[in-house]
Amino acid sequence: MSGSTFGTIFRITTWGESHGPAVGVVIDGCLPGMPLAEADVQKELDRRRPGQSDISTPRKEADVVAILSGVFEGKTTGTPISMIVRNRNVDSSPYKELRHTPRPGHADYPYEIKYGIRDYRGGGRASARETVGRVAAGAVARKILAGHGIDVVAHVIELGGIRARGCEIAPPGISDVSVVSNMSEMKARIEESPIRCADPDAGAAMLELVRSAREDGDSIGGIVEIIATGIPAGIGEPVFDKLDADLAKALMGIGAVKGVEIGAGFRCARMRGSEMNDAFRISDSNGTVMPETNHAGGILGGLATGAPIVCRIAVKPTPSIAMPQKTVDLRTMSEAEITIKGRHDPTIPPRMVPVAEAMVAIVLTDHLLRDCSTKTYIPER
Amino acid sequence: MSGSTFGTIFRITTWGESHGPAVGVVIDGCLPGMPLAEADVQKELDRRRPGQSDISTPRKEADVVAILSGVFEGKTTGTPISMIVRNRNVDSSPYKELRHTPRPGHADYPYEIKYGIRDYRGGGRASARETVGRVAAGAVARKILAGHGIDVVAHVIELGGIRARGCEIAPPGISDVSVVSNMSEMKARIEESPIRCADPDAGAAMLELVRSAREDGDSIGGIVEIIATGIPAGIGEPVFDKLDADLAKALMGIGAVKGVEIGAGFRCARMRGSEMNDAFRISDSNGTVMPETNHAGGILGGLATGAPIVCRIAVKPTPSIAMPQKTVDLRTMSEAEITIKGRHDPTIPPRMVPVAEAMVAIVLTDHLLRDCSTKTYIPER
Amino acid sequence: MSGSTFGTIFRITTWGESHGPAVGVVIDGCLPGMPLAEADVQKELDRRRPGQSDISTPRKEADVVAILSGVFEGKTTGTPISMIVRNRNVDSSPYKELRHTPRPGHADYPYEIKYGIRDYRGGGRASARETVGRVAAGAVARKILAGHGIDVVAHVIELGGIRARGCEIAPPGISDVSVVSNMSEMKARIEESPIRCADPDAGAAMLELVRSAREDGDSIGGIVEIIATGIPAGIGEPVFDKLDADLAKALMGIGAVKGVEIGAGFRCARMRGSEMNDAFRISDSNGTVMPETNHAGGILGGLATGAPIVCRIAVKPTPSIAMPQKTVDLRTMSEAEITIKGRHDPTIPPRMVPVAEAMVAIVLTDHLLRDCSTKTYIPER
Amino acid sequence: MSGSTFGTIFRITTWGESHGPAVGVVIDGCLPGMPLAEADVQKELDRRRPGQSDISTPRKEADVVAILSGVFEGKTTGTPISMIVRNRNVDSSPYKELRHTPRPGHADYPYEIKYGIRDYRGGGRASARETVGRVAAGAVARKILAGHGIDVVAHVIELGGIRARGCEIAPPGISDVSVVSNMSEMKARIEESPIRCADPDAGAAMLELVRSAREDGDSIGGIVEIIATGIPAGIGEPVFDKLDADLAKALMGIGAVKGVEIGAGFRCARMRGSEMNDAFRISDSNGTVMPETNHAGGILGGLATGAPIVCRIAVKPTPSIAMPQKTVDLRTMSEAEITIKGRHDPTIPPRMVPVAEAMVAIVLTDHLLRDCSTKTYIPER
Repeated sequence: MSGSTFGTIFRITTWGESHGPAVGVVIDGCLPGMPLAEADVQKELDRRRPGQSDISTPRKEADVVAILSGVFEGKTTGTPISMIVRNRNVDSSPYKELRHTPRPGHADYPYEIKYGIRDYRGGGRASARETVGRVAAGAVARKILAGHGIDVVAHVIELGGIRARGCEIAPPGISDVSVVSNMSEMKARIEESPIRCADPDAGAAMLELVRSAREDGDSIGGIVEIIATGIPAGIGEPVFDKLDADLAKALMGIGAVKGVEIGAGFRCARMRGSEMNDAFRISDSNGTVMPETNHAGGILGGLATGAPIVCRIAVKPTPSIAMPQKTVDLRTMSEAEITIKGRHDPTIPPRMVPVAEAMVAIVLTDHLLRDCSTKTYIPER
Repeated sequence: MSGSTFGTIFRITTWGESHGPAVGVVIDGCLPGMPLAEADVQKELDRRRPGQSDISTPRKEADVVAILSGVFEGKTTGTPISMIVRNRNVDSSPYKELRHTPRPGHADYPYEIKYGIRDYRGGGRASARETVGRVAAGAVARKILAGHGIDVVAHVIELGGIRARGCEIAPPGISDVSVVSNMSEMKARIEESPIRCADPDAGAAMLELVRSAREDGDSIGGIVEIIATGIPAGIGEPVFDKLDADLAKALMGIGAVKGVEIGAGFRCARMRGSEMNDAFRISDSNGTVMPETNHAGGILGGLATGAPIVCRIAVKPTPSIAMPQKTVDLRTMSEAEITIKGRHDPTIPPRMVPVAEAMVAIVLTDHLLRDCSTKTYIPER
Repeated sequence: MSGSTFGTIFRITTWGESHGPAVGVVIDGCLPGMPLAEADVQKELDRRRPGQSDISTPRKEADVVAILSGVFEGKTTGTPISMIVRNRNVDSSPYKELRHTPRPGHADYPYEIKYGIRDYRGGGRASARETVGRVAAGAVARKILAGHGIDVVAHVIELGGIRARGCEIAPPGISDVSVVSNMSEMKARIEESPIRCADPDAGAAMLELVRSAREDGDSIGGIVEIIATGIPAGIGEPVFDKLDADLAKALMGIGAVKGVEIGAGFRCARMRGSEMNDAFRISDSNGTVMPETNHAGGILGGLATGAPIVCRIAVKPTPSIAMPQKTVDLRTMSEAEITIKGRHDPTIPPRMVPVAEAMVAIVLTDHLLRDCSTKTYIPER
Repeated sequence: MSGSTFGTIFRITTWGESHGPAVGVVIDGCLPGMPLAEADVQKELDRRRPGQSDISTPRKEADVVAILSGVFEGKTTGTPISMIVRNRNVDSSPYKELRHTPRPGHADYPYEIKYGIRDYRGGGRASARETVGRVAAGAVARKILAGHGIDVVAHVIELGGIRARGCEIAPPGISDVSVVSNMSEMKARIEESPIRCADPDAGAAMLELVRSAREDGDSIGGIVEIIATGIPAGIGEPVFDKLDADLAKALMGIGAVKGVEIGAGFRCARMRGSEMNDAFRISDSNGTVMPETNHAGGILGGLATGAPIVCRIAVKPTPSIAMPQKTVDLRTMSEAEITIKGRHDPTIPPRMVPVAEAMVAIVLTDHLLRDCSTKTYIPER
């Protein structure tokens, strides 16, 4: 059954396989009248593409986006925006010999069972290449959010057990954190880092670790944090389409993500109510109500509180490793051993950053638009 | 905007406020011809209701369910099943004085901002009482699942930092775990425990801790694990409606949940690929393909692998605590102090168990039905 | 699969069978802060219920509505509104003997095939009684519309071949029609008429005809017109959720409706473009653009033009007739003859009026709310 | 808000503007394992494209489809199928001068009001060119249906008041009609006719009339009938997603359609119940239950009866006529006169045929897949 569409009002549908002719996305429900150029989208795709440092796959994907509809004379028209990125010719032959021996940690096996057929080349539909469409749509969402003063930034806060310092957000409380008060500086630091870690020292250590794992033919996991600022209080739709519920779906639905937490997250299991509860106060800056700390991660009862939204995702180590692995041969139903060839990113979190930002931006845009209907009551005359 | 409906084919809509006349649920898309009696649902509601031990609120909710439609001569008809539970008369007066001073950690403030009006009595729509509808719908889902050999069980694995032992599931691998091979024993132990912990020693220590927190006028958080066995490989709908994505949405959308993880979850951030990847083998018992370990928690690429599905959720400490708390008065926009009266559960996880089971059962039922259309191709004659 | 929910933002779910304990509806997505009392809904249910004249079934359904959620201190809270109407005890025995012999023109046969089980009493889920929920939801929709200056009225324009005169709307052009300029007078005339026909002479002849058909043990069909005024230009969501497409779905989905047309409708097949096209002019009254005639029925390209929306529906003669009818016995798979007992409305259109109004009101409310997101673009600062 | 997606399980999203770079469609939810080639789709696009006779626009659209995803080694994979058709370079200049003067009978005016911006070239999104995506998706749907023995055919039954004879379907009863028993002959006759009328004499007269209307600079309307055979009884999802309701939405949502009827349609308004009701009998051919006549058009209570499904749609005369027309200039808000240049089809119904077939095929496919979940109950062991 269909599951390739996400969102309710701002709605995206991605399509495409890793080694097919192209990948793409259709955005339905974008606001009309917004300036939009291919360069707006290209910028984000460039952040996503591989080959940006020595720890990402050297495959030089040009990933040039073309906007095929929904934009006229440089502005969105409110009609569907279709975007396409051609796949470069890549050698599919290494995948051929893995056709009947599902790779551990990959989607090969359940795809085979579900569909009885799959494009096994490069992971087919289950490839990370599918995220091209998400990032392209996210670029459009970010432009809408920017008009509302909303910004989204992600960074690697842990890799292979090494933790970034001085750049964490939520638990200690908003006011302690330079990050949010200086979002642009933080973003610059993240973009400079090949690991996309805002703490340069930790970033250097992480880079070392990644290189060493690659030497071993192995891979490492990590944690990415996503922060969104400027969300108006009240965004979210109880009781099932809560803001945190939709963020969890959006983030858990990215390949390799195995956990999602909001605010204090799993740490809350060891906290007491007196510590976890964020007291309300009157903000000095603008006189609105604002939580004093942000253990809630900007969301209470599924609705934004006005504080920054803070999510963290656990990203598993890349399943494509160079070591031999045990699996089964689906033709003979006997056990087998495979070795995955070619070069693969030894760690995913740095490249996850633009994808996670995109998904959060899409959820926030959708909920921003969903919320607007709540305000439209006009008394009967 | 509407957000009170969950699911695609097996679809539930809950309604009702804590101190309104009733709460309820409509299930649309239930299979026809299935025996269903109020007792099937009542059983689960009885597991959910408060007053079952000295650490849950003494409010004696009878919570008697009535099925108003969709069942004829003891069987489902495939038409919507409407279920209703009348609210007992409860004293709303303690909430009156909190009307303009939002309780920290509760949804009061963002509801007020979003809607401009709210039923403040007992938390209104944001009350845990809303989960009555979820549990009732979950009871129906569980009957469908049972026909397919699928079982769902949840238990408290950590409370206030105390961890249960000998009853963890996924990470060490399936075969190590007596739990799955002896699901019925595990369920019995969980039901016997006032904490719903399968490890009696840990359970006793947890109980002590909860009592002590209550003495302090405070509350404690914990972690609940949910295990589902018998899921056929291939269930799930990429790329957005992945099984883990929908589980994450369903679970994060329960009040007080701040984190969701699948399989190894956040631990995967510190694992290497060679450790995280679950090798495939041929199962001794039935000759099918089965992962040797289950760090994936039963899901790869958003599709079930056939191994048990394992989720864990972080549950925050009850926000209603007896200590004085700082907040603001929304009338005067000045800072204020409140004390929440009445008795409240000092910890949520034990009562979260049937709710989490219900939400997982609903997701699995929906995806089981969604998957069926994948199998219907008939070659053109 | 589930099909009992209608609408996208203003979303209704109906439930209940004719002879079950109750019927009802849950509205999700109603605007907060709107005054709403049971009397607002009761008023419309009273217009719907049978026994209002000698040509409708004498079954005295009290049809008293109770609002169970979503309203607090007399105002909507933005949370789901659950409404319930208890079914009176009615004698189901006449249906028992028809259990295995599907009534011609009724849903009995395909329900049996689809579900393998059905509540055969009084038509079960396929009974016109299901429209109680629609009318209740429509009453809420109408209150929202009233705030936007939108009104909806329906009337019988043809019955058994007798056509009402002097009260047609669209084709001749808006300005010719007293009806729209005097909506309240028209409504009064319609409510006075047992046939709900605005032309008293035609109404009298129709009434005669209906009585005569009843004498014959037969039934007659007719046409109902629905007019909505005050719709802002631009409402509707191309290319599939066009306003006329959603109206067609809503109206064709009412039992007994076999045709839907907008504006000139089927007459347009015999018109030329030079006649059909409505020229635009500047309205004298308010300086806005307005079509000079209204063959389009207020909709172009699936979007409202600002002119009154005009739909017409063909309503088949009541399938429950007193004459013997040929059918099959599903047990023996042999041909059989049945006679339907009890009293049934000899014509449906008069009672269709409030139902059709309700469905149009629901579509318009949903689209009014859907449109609001189109207006929210804020340029990036 | 988004409205460019249609269907629930078999789900299509169209995109593209008339004079933009391309138009296309994404199908999500197609069954895996079905042979699919571009030729399957091209065949239907060739039936749709203009320039097939002297009464359609001479614009030579090549309309070559490319399948970009979802097909591997000649078979569908169950993942989204993206199809694209490049637009040929066409001269947009004639539209430039109409930019501020909305064409009567076109969507120009309400698009301008709704979106504040529109691609005015060739009608932009509201152009009939959008139906390329529908026809492409319909071609895929038809392949699925063919496997289930379901066929869909449409033909022009009335044009400018001239009615085809000897090829009507439903009302007189199935058995009287050679058409259904000889579907392939009927299809051949339809394809031979430039008008797509199965009655050659009527077709010739219609052609004459169309030419004469074109001479006058005018256009004519007509009626298209769509017949689907082989639908299993029980397909459809009450109470809102009834089969007739979804057909009505799908058909009314095609540009230029102003009315939809099922079976006897508007004629039922003048029938008595004793005439309208279709008696059930045991079919001689296969021993199943079958209605003796088919005034119901194959649908009762929103569910298929097993008899052929018969719909008719009223198609308005082409709004683009050569005569001068009155409109307004939106810049000055003053009245204006325009003359539409270029060549336009003087009648739409012949080209509507493949589009209407496509939409009916899409609805039937979606409902066929939706129905499958109804059959999956397995008793608890």
